[in-house]
Amino acid sequence: MFKVEVIVTLRTSILDPQGKTVEHAMHSLRMNTINNVRVGKVFHCTINTSSYDEAKKSVEEACKKVFTNPVMEDYSYKIEKM
Amino acid sequence: MFKVEVIVTLRTSILDPQGKTVEHAMHSLRMNTINNVRVGKVFHCTINTSSYDEAKKSVEEACKKVFTNPVMEDYSYKIEKM
Repeated sequence: MFKVEVIVTLRTSILDPQGKTVEHAMHSLRMNTINNVRVGKVFHCTINTSSYDEAKKSVEEACKKVFTNPVMEDYSYKIEKM
Repeated sequence: MFKVEVIVTLRTSILDPQGKTVEHAMHSLRMNTINNVRVGKVFHCTINTSSYDEAKKSVEEACKKVFTNPVMEDYSYKIEKM
């Protein structure tokens, strides 16, 4: 059994209006030192297999088919034995 | 200048219908080994200060006031010197 964390972010070349809005809200609250806010998604899940390689294969497949839109988003993941 | 990654997740006691939907979609695609999917948010930003302690204070404030709903969500963060 493995525990997985997948982080999905918009590609850096793509404008992030949600991040801009959050940044603007923070500047309104006088948190002026915070900049370049970008918002992404994080997925936590478990994979029921005993082999690390199989877990990695499942995560790659899930990332490409479900977790991300590969045209607009990048992903990174961490796999940890439970 | 510091680079920050904040991960915001729903508290474990709170039902995550978005995660359930993603999990269901994956099982429909025969990815049956993946379970317990939960979806959260990730914020990347930079903090324009030279002191680590000040950066930490800013992140804590941003987490409590903007990034999370402290009633329903938990957060964790990583601060890295740029």
